[in-house]
Amino acid sequence: MTAQPTPPMATGTLREHLGPAVRQAATALAQADSAAKNRFLQATAAALETQRALLLQANALDVAQASDQPAAFQERLTLNDSRITGMIKGLHDVAYLPDPVGRIRELTRQTSGITVGRMRVPLGVLAMVFESRPNVAIDAAALAVKAGNAIYLKAGTEALHTCRILDACLQEGLRQAGLPMEAVVMLPCDGRHLIQELIGSPQWIDLLIARGGHALFAALHQESRVPVMGHLSGNCHIYVDDRADLDQAMAIVCNAKLSRPGVCNAMETLLVAAPIAASWLPAMLDKLREAGCAMRGCPATRDLVPWVQPATEQDWHEEYLAPILAVRVVAGLDEAMAHIARYGTQHTEVILTQDLARAEQFLRGVDAASVMVNASSRFADGSEYGLGAEIGIATGKLHARGPIALEGLTCEKWIVLGQGQVRE
Amino acid sequence: MTAQPTPPMATGTLREHLGPAVRQAATALAQADSAAKNRFLQATAAALETQRALLLQANALDVAQASDQPAAFQERLTLNDSRITGMIKGLHDVAYLPDPVGRIRELTRQTSGITVGRMRVPLGVLAMVFESRPNVAIDAAALAVKAGNAIYLKAGTEALHTCRILDACLQEGLRQAGLPMEAVVMLPCDGRHLIQELIGSPQWIDLLIARGGHALFAALHQESRVPVMGHLSGNCHIYVDDRADLDQAMAIVCNAKLSRPGVCNAMETLLVAAPIAASWLPAMLDKLREAGCAMRGCPATRDLVPWVQPATEQDWHEEYLAPILAVRVVAGLDEAMAHIARYGTQHTEVILTQDLARAEQFLRGVDAASVMVNASSRFADGSEYGLGAEIGIATGKLHARGPIALEGLTCEKWIVLGQGQVRE
Repeated sequence: MTAQPTPPMATGTLREHLGPAVRQAATALAQADSAAKNRFLQATAAALETQRALLLQANALDVAQASDQPAAFQERLTLNDSRITGMIKGLHDVAYLPDPVGRIRELTRQTSGITVGRMRVPLGVLAMVFESRPNVAIDAAALAVKAGNAIYLKAGTEALHTCRILDACLQEGLRQAGLPMEAVVMLPCDGRHLIQELIGSPQWIDLLIARGGHALFAALHQESRVPVMGHLSGNCHIYVDDRADLDQAMAIVCNAKLSRPGVCNAMETLLVAAPIAASWLPAMLDKLREAGCAMRGCPATRDLVPWVQPATEQDWHEEYLAPILAVRVVAGLDEAMAHIARYGTQHTEVILTQDLARAEQFLRGVDAASVMVNASSRFADGSEYGLGAEIGIATGKLHARGPIALEGLTCEKWIVLGQGQVRE
Repeated sequence: MTAQPTPPMATGTLREHLGPAVRQAATALAQADSAAKNRFLQATAAALETQRALLLQANALDVAQASDQPAAFQERLTLNDSRITGMIKGLHDVAYLPDPVGRIRELTRQTSGITVGRMRVPLGVLAMVFESRPNVAIDAAALAVKAGNAIYLKAGTEALHTCRILDACLQEGLRQAGLPMEAVVMLPCDGRHLIQELIGSPQWIDLLIARGGHALFAALHQESRVPVMGHLSGNCHIYVDDRADLDQAMAIVCNAKLSRPGVCNAMETLLVAAPIAASWLPAMLDKLREAGCAMRGCPATRDLVPWVQPATEQDWHEEYLAPILAVRVVAGLDEAMAHIARYGTQHTEVILTQDLARAEQFLRGVDAASVMVNASSRFADGSEYGLGAEIGIATGKLHARGPIALEGLTCEKWIVLGQGQVRE
C-alpha cells in the first residue's frame, strides 16, 4: 500500500462523476452487514498502525509549512503518537458499538389493530468539511460507514500531506472489507472550488457537517443548499455557585480552561457567585496566572484582584481558543443564567454547586447542547459520552444536538404491520 | 367571546413587533407546567364546542367563495360537524398524552465517572404555513403548545372566515390557561407578504412546517432561510404480491385509493405481480371503475383490461389527489421495489403479501417515511400511529420523518452529572 498523490479535480467533477457513484455506494452500504462494516474499521486501524511512521513524517511536513498559523491552529493540526493511537482506538471503539441500522423500536399495537414502530436507517450521503484537525477524518469515516452512509471528506489545505496517508489507509480498509471504494471519498485539500460544489448539490449530499472555525461554519451555514450541522463557536461558561465545593471548583476550572485551550469545549468565561468571590477568587486567579493564563475581569473582579485587566463587552462574547479567561462576579444563580442566556452559544454550560435545587434549576433552565453539574466542560465529547467517537458537535436544535455520532448520522422510518386493516 | 376581524398587518410587523414578543412567549412556555398546557387544550376544545354553529357558518362562507377551486381543494377546506368533533377530540387526545418536556432518558455512568443522559426540551418558535385545511390549525397549535413551543399559523386566503373563529377559540384557550397570548399567533390569511417575513426570519423562527400542495412546499423549501419540514408530494404505491391474500388486497386497494382521494396518503399507483395479474386485476379494476375511479395502465394491464386508458411516463410520477389510479404489472418484488425507488416520493409505500421473507425485504429495503405490510396507506397519520395528532408529514430524513407530533417538535439536550470530575 502506497499513498498516491491525489490527482487534481476539475470543476463539475462532483456533479457529473462522483455524485452518482457515491450515491450508489451509499445504497450498497445501507444494505451492508455489520461484519463488513466492522472489517472496514479494523482494517483501517491496522493500516494506520502500519503507516504510523509515514503519517508522522507527512504531518511534520504539514505542521512545518503552517508555521505562520496561530498556535492553537498548529496544535490542532499536529499528530503525535498518542493522537494516532487515539485514532486507532476510536476505530476499534466504533467497531464494538452495536450497529444502529435496522434496529426496530417501540412496536406498538394501535386501536385499529395495526402495529406501528420505527426502524433506524442511514441518512445516505454525508460530507464533512473540516479545517485543521486531521484525526477527525478518521472518526468521521468510521461513524459514517458504521451508520451505513457514504461520506465526502474535505480538509483544509494545511493538512494536505497528512490527508493523503489517511486516505490511503481508508481505501485499504474499504478494499479489505469488500465495500465500494466510493463509500469514503477524500477530496483534494487544495480544491477550494469543491466546497462550492458540495454546498450546491443537495441532490447528491444529504447532510453537511462543518468542523472548524467560526468563519467556516458561518460561510457554509449562510450559503449551503445542503443542510449543515456544526457549531459557530463554543463560548462555554462555568458558574461557581456559593454552595460549590471550592477545592473541586478550582480543579475543574483549571481543567476546563487549560487542559486544551484550543478546542471548542474549553471554558471561556468564569462566573462566580458574589458571596464567595472575596474568599475564593484571588487564589483561583493566582493559580491560573501561574499556569500561564491571562485574565479579563469585571469591575468587581478587579476590585478583588487588581492586576486583572478590565474586560470589555466584547470579552463576554469572545471564544478565545487560547489561555485567556473572562471573569465576572454575579449576584447568584439567576444572574449567572441570564448572562449565559445573553452571551452563550448553546454549546456547553456548567454549574458547580452542592445544592440540589440549584443544580436542577440550571439543568432544566439553561438552553445549550450540553448542560453539566460538577464536571469539566471538556467532557462535552462523543467518546466521553459513550458514543465511541464524534463527527462534530452541533449547537442547533434540529436533528442532532451536541456530539454527533451514530444516532445523529441515521434517522428512523415508520414501519406498519397489518393483517389487512383498512382505515374507516 | 366574539370573533374580531383581524386587523391588517404591515410589512415589517414580524421583525419589529411580533418576533420578540413571540420569542418571549416561547421562553415562558418552555417553563410552563403540564397542567397549564392541558388547560389550554381543554379550554380551546370547549370554545370550539361553543362556537360550533358560528364555525360552520363561517366555513360555509369560505367554501362558497372557493367554488372555482378544484373539488379536492374544496373537500379539504370544508368543515362539517364530524370534522369539528375530530378537532375537539384531537385537543383532548393531545391533553392525555404525556408531557415530553423535561423527560430524561438513558442516564448512563461513563468510565470517567460522569453520568450522561438526555433531556427533552422544546424547539422554541414554530411556524406553520398551510393551505386549505382549516382543522390542521387546531392540531398544530395543540401539539406546539403541549411540546412547549410558541407557533405562528398562516392559512391560505380561502380559509379567512373559518380561521377568524378558530383564532378566537385559541385565544380563549390561552386566556383561560393563563399562558401568554403570543404563544399562538394566527397571522392574517390575506397577508401574503408575511410568508416572506416568516421565511426570512431565522432569528425569530426555529422551524417552519409546510402543509399544503406541491407548489407551496417547493417554494418555501427553495427560498426559506428557516429550516422547513413537510413533503413535496405523496406518490404512494401499493404492491400486490402474488402471495397476497387477494380478497384482503381488494379491500385495501379500494380503501387506499377511494376513502379520501384528495389527501397525501392516498394510493396513486398500483403495482401488481405478474403471476396474479390475469386472475385478479380485471375484477379489481372493474370494482374500482364501479366506484367511480378512472385508470391509466401499462401495456400488460391493457392487454388484460382493454378499456383502461394507456399510462404515459408522467402517470408514474403523478400525485393525482383524485379518483384516478395508475396501474402497472411488474415481474415481482424486485421490479416493484425498483419502480418505487425510481418514482416514489418517500412518503408511504405498501406491500401486500403473506410471505414473511418478502415482507421483510420490502420493509428493510424501501426508503420512505412509512413502509407498510398488509395495511392501507391511509393509515400514515399521526393519530393512527398513536401520536395524538400531527402537525404535518415530513419526507426528508433530518430531524423528524413521517407524521410530526410532540417528539418532532422537541429536541434533546445532553445533561452531565459529575462529582468533580476533570478530563485527563
